[in-house]
Amino acid sequence: MATLTQKFHGLLQHPLEPLFLPKNDGTLFYDLPERFLTSRYSPIGQNLANRFGPNSPASSQVSNDTGVPPTVVTIKDLDELPDLTFATWIKRRDSFSLFNPEHRKAAGKLTKLFLDQPNADRLVDVAAYARDRLNAPLFQYALSVALLHRPDTKSVSVPSLLHLFPDQFIDPAAQVRMMEEGSIVLDENRMPIPIPMNYTATDAEPEQRMAFFREDIGVNLHHWHWHLVYPASGPPDVVRKDRRGELFYYMHQQLLARYQIDRYAQGLGRIEPLANLREPVREAYYPKLLRTSNNRTFCPRYPGMTISDVARSADRLEVRIADIESWLPRVLEAIDAGFAVSDDGVRVPLDETRGIDVLGNILERSAISINRNLYGDVHNMGHVLLAFIHDPRGTYLESSGVMGGVATAMRDPIFYRWHKFIDNIFLRNKARLAPYTMAELSNSNVTLEALETQLDRAGGAVNSFVTFWQRSQVDLRAGIDFSAAGSAFVSFTHLQCAPFVYRLRINSTARSNRQDTVRIFLLPRQNEQGRPLSFEDRRLLAIELDSFRVNLRPGMNNIVRQSSNSSVTIPFERTFGNVEQANAGNAQSRFCGCGWPAHMLLPKGNANGVEFDLFAMVSRFEDDNANVNYDENAGCDDSYAFCGLRDRVYPSRRAMGFPFDRRASNGVRSVADFVAPYKNMRLATVTLRFMNTIIDRPTN
Amino acid sequence: MATLTQKFHGLLQHPLEPLFLPKNDGTLFYDLPERFLTSRYSPIGQNLANRFGPNSPASSQVSNDTGVPPTVVTIKDLDELPDLTFATWIKRRDSFSLFNPEHRKAAGKLTKLFLDQPNADRLVDVAAYARDRLNAPLFQYALSVALLHRPDTKSVSVPSLLHLFPDQFIDPAAQVRMMEEGSIVLDENRMPIPIPMNYTATDAEPEQRMAFFREDIGVNLHHWHWHLVYPASGPPDVVRKDRRGELFYYMHQQLLARYQIDRYAQGLGRIEPLANLREPVREAYYPKLLRTSNNRTFCPRYPGMTISDVARSADRLEVRIADIESWLPRVLEAIDAGFAVSDDGVRVPLDETRGIDVLGNILERSAISINRNLYGDVHNMGHVLLAFIHDPRGTYLESSGVMGGVATAMRDPIFYRWHKFIDNIFLRNKARLAPYTMAELSNSNVTLEALETQLDRAGGAVNSFVTFWQRSQVDLRAGIDFSAAGSAFVSFTHLQCAPFVYRLRINSTARSNRQDTVRIFLLPRQNEQGRPLSFEDRRLLAIELDSFRVNLRPGMNNIVRQSSNSSVTIPFERTFGNVEQANAGNAQSRFCGCGWPAHMLLPKGNANGVEFDLFAMVSRFEDDNANVNYDENAGCDDSYAFCGLRDRVYPSRRAMGFPFDRRASNGVRSVADFVAPYKNMRLATVTLRFMNTIIDRPTN
Repeated sequence: MATLTQKFHGLLQHPLEPLFLPKNDGTLFYDLPERFLTSRYSPIGQNLANRFGPNSPASSQVSNDTGVPPTVVTIKDLDELPDLTFATWIKRRDSFSLFNPEHRKAAGKLTKLFLDQPNADRLVDVAAYARDRLNAPLFQYALSVALLHRPDTKSVSVPSLLHLFPDQFIDPAAQVRMMEEGSIVLDENRMPIPIPMNYTATDAEPEQRMAFFREDIGVNLHHWHWHLVYPASGPPDVVRKDRRGELFYYMHQQLLARYQIDRYAQGLGRIEPLANLREPVREAYYPKLLRTSNNRTFCPRYPGMTISDVARSADRLEVRIADIESWLPRVLEAIDAGFAVSDDGVRVPLDETRGIDVLGNILERSAISINRNLYGDVHNMGHVLLAFIHDPRGTYLESSGVMGGVATAMRDPIFYRWHKFIDNIFLRNKARLAPYTMAELSNSNVTLEALETQLDRAGGAVNSFVTFWQRSQVDLRAGIDFSAAGSAFVSFTHLQCAPFVYRLRINSTARSNRQDTVRIFLLPRQNEQGRPLSFEDRRLLAIELDSFRVNLRPGMNNIVRQSSNSSVTIPFERTFGNVEQANAGNAQSRFCGCGWPAHMLLPKGNANGVEFDLFAMVSRFEDDNANVNYDENAGCDDSYAFCGLRDRVYPSRRAMGFPFDRRASNGVRSVADFVAPYKNMRLATVTLRFMNTIIDRPTN
Repeated sequence: MATLTQKFHGLLQHPLEPLFLPKNDGTLFYDLPERFLTSRYSPIGQNLANRFGPNSPASSQVSNDTGVPPTVVTIKDLDELPDLTFATWIKRRDSFSLFNPEHRKAAGKLTKLFLDQPNADRLVDVAAYARDRLNAPLFQYALSVALLHRPDTKSVSVPSLLHLFPDQFIDPAAQVRMMEEGSIVLDENRMPIPIPMNYTATDAEPEQRMAFFREDIGVNLHHWHWHLVYPASGPPDVVRKDRRGELFYYMHQQLLARYQIDRYAQGLGRIEPLANLREPVREAYYPKLLRTSNNRTFCPRYPGMTISDVARSADRLEVRIADIESWLPRVLEAIDAGFAVSDDGVRVPLDETRGIDVLGNILERSAISINRNLYGDVHNMGHVLLAFIHDPRGTYLESSGVMGGVATAMRDPIFYRWHKFIDNIFLRNKARLAPYTMAELSNSNVTLEALETQLDRAGGAVNSFVTFWQRSQVDLRAGIDFSAAGSAFVSFTHLQCAPFVYRLRINSTARSNRQDTVRIFLLPRQNEQGRPLSFEDRRLLAIELDSFRVNLRPGMNNIVRQSSNSSVTIPFERTFGNVEQANAGNAQSRFCGCGWPAHMLLPKGNANGVEFDLFAMVSRFEDDNANVNYDENAGCDDSYAFCGLRDRVYPSRRAMGFPFDRRASNGVRSVADFVAPYKNMRLATVTLRFMNTIIDRPTN
């Protein structure tokens, strides 16, 4: 009997292989009612059952070879077949974009259809009917959101998108070589197909220095899974989550800060916000990515192209630059006036507690924006305009560029310019807020006596970070359609940092045990020319490395914290875990793919070594406490910084980014000034050096 | 024992499937010396032999199913393995372009290596060694040229490129659906995958009205096979063919005239010659084509892009606009001066007999240009500049656009603007030549009493042509790598004309039987606004429909000529015939793919009906006769108009395009004036009507 996880993972695998084909490498079968077969296959239904069903020669061959008996999922017919016309206008093999409001609407309705099913098994039946009739990414997205939000499918982990649509993450040139390797070489002899580090440009393009960041598979998976956990539209209880608007602001602000820090380290200047949509876009980007569903490429943007209004009837999509230009002044006016106006005319203050959250939903825009007509849909529509710069009217039948996909947008340099423009709007609101008071920043109970880091190996260097290239492998068999059975490994090279520990000596003057929160940030010192950054610049570029609750006994406490426990990141296995592991019900492979990839915890830095200020603070738990229980070492609770906690409020009452989310009081000229008055804060100078060597990840 | 044809066709099939995999649907095996396996496969050679060799379970399964015993080609080891480094720098899965001089040089050397082999069987052994080490299209091109030119491989037909690299001709979206159909449906149940007529643009793009012409598979195959039969570089006896320079001029002049005629009929204006390479290129083109070897797309050219110098070190390619701008004035000077200067300083007259041939080799440029340094390489380098407009320095690691491939260039509207510019240079030379004299045009022996056409069916309309859309199917299994065994049909829609006959009544006043040549042209009357064209315009747009030798008895001769016998075209089966037929040694499927596709014999016209002047002339054989024997109904002799005759001189001493290749004498204001003085000429008004219906080609 198939487990619930197996049933759903079989539905999610090999998206464009019809459901009647065996799944899980030939060991999982769906016994479908005849009328569930699509029009192409129903006339030859019996023939297909004989050849691909659980009793076919091929399947007995597999069970003999693998010793795994066939598992059959019997799909029950439905009294009434659901009307799917709200979504079938998006063709099965065409592109799907969450930035397209009409695609989002169709996804929202499909999610609702899945959420409304009385029980998980009926959901399996309905999904089995819908699957081969619908656009594949649309089906995957809606089913994944439903699995994440239905109470009765909590145990079902959502496989990483990498394993469902590898074509959104890897060089398509690798896929044809995987096809050759898989067709010719026996599984045990197969070699992983290497994905080159630089396949979108040479170093004659300065921006290519940031390709390691923009094209990192983990970073793009994080972005996809964030928008999966925090959908901008869909049924209200799926969208309305605690401080989701603020999370939209904070997650993007942090990835921009990380991006900018490494631009400086690679000798590249400040991100120029895309403030004028009518100017030619200087940066080019040639994604190379290919949608294997219809062999259509994500079109390149050539140097100096100019955006024009999008009017694509086939996509039911119409976006005017003038619309964005009319929404923006109203958002700025709301910020400068200190309040926004809801669609029932109520003034909603953009204050220090909820202001940024309200603004986040307004700007993204999410379905819970307080006034969708007045403030429009700035961020999403910017993505659309940029995504179709090469075919704004659909005249040339091209699909969107990478800016049109949540899983691909971060690959494009323009993503950062557009999001910097959005980020500046948030910062405009933050700039109106008063600096934190002494009371808010101090913690009279403690003194942070010492702060240092140490590489986590015998005699590891102190206050010294090391980064390098790591070559890892991942088996993508679940996402390659109509390929040979067995493994389909690729190897890819990504940034990695040597594991380290923080060592903090905290002296607690409280008479009894107390809990406090340790917050750790990294602040850059210099720009790309080696010139010192102002404190204001440094504050805005402070990147959160970790924040965790610490139990303090009275007196001296020696806290040692592993870098791998960061509340910002998720471990490599969670980013890249594959469906097979999930099928084996392996708890460790619990899939919440949302979380900054651990291998990108630290900026890359460079070979000369980059100096940073490591900042630590022990903040008062009484002000932090959001009365929520979570266990960092279980399930998805280990990456709340960017992803919050599933079905619970954000675990800290403070503003996200505290204490650096607010301007400092006037006298503060440097980070040393900022720290000086507070015993519960401390700085350490750390040097980050990049070693330009490739080290193979140990395959366990 | 495998026939020579089977041996070579096995080498040419499934270009990216290693040679040790069975060919011909699992019935043809190459038994290779161990050291012939490439480095990836030699370590597992024995395992591969067991699984894929003639004695493998899979092969006995095939011979049981098909009743065809396995055919084994035993490849003999070579005393000395050839050094292939002159070509291995072009990576196996990368793009290959005959417009790249360094690629052409490598192809020339490989062709020479193949030509130099002492016998055909040794060529099979050398080719078997080279195949999996070399760039696939490069290998195919060189082996095809060698097969066409070796005396001992005359019997081996070169399969149509469509069956070796279908990805250069069809919508790649069809390929993923072919993969699904092939993987799931038994051969006898398989349905052809339809290729839509308009997959590169909607009709919001006016130029899309000519997509039926530009993207016609037959037209592009003709262009490829022309350059295969008339390579611009390679061993001298491969390049130096009778009047190949003039053929370069004439074949392109005729396809431009056909293109222009149909532009007028579709309401599009005159082709604007691409005279200034520094101006933005107005026309956009989004090819959609995908190189399945490395999943890299042929990049689109967006509206208004500007050409820049190409400097691509990885392709060993450097082309400056300034170079073309310096070669051109020298070519024009040579024309205006009436002579060109060879590289040993000799003045070569650009006269009426050889001038255009010399100019053709100068402008293409072919290896037999009389002065490569002085006159450069105008036409090819124009292709290169346009082909890399999107990535002139290789900064973004993109391959060439369609203008970089001989099999794909005609898909792009800019091909016609560039070739019109080149054509105008040829016309400048033609304009210097004196009009034909009465003696040259007349044929005192005959009077062409009557001329008409009739649709070739009972009661067929007279002087009335009908065109329509025809849907045909072709099995592309030989070119789809690592796909399921069995058929892989696509259906595609193309122009077709209802078959018709010419009826000529020729009265011969000679006392005995005599032979003369009938030449038939179609002349448009109006431009796109319905305004009458000048005679000079009409003359330059006269398209050759047919020319054939006719045996005249004394007195009245009633000549009936089938449209399908045209000396300009080759039948559908020759354009689209597939490798299997060739393997069956089926004489009918003799492959000379060079020849305008029969289904494009007539322009499309339009639904309102377009009036043309049908011009016929019976020219004096004594002036035509080039003393060469050929039989229209045998081998490749049926399409000499554009392709000449294999290993023989061009079968007419007249200038190609006679009598319309020269300006008329001053008094001639109309085609009626032109014909009036000559009893051996005649006009008929014909109306060409397009029926916008799709008719399925009868599958025999």
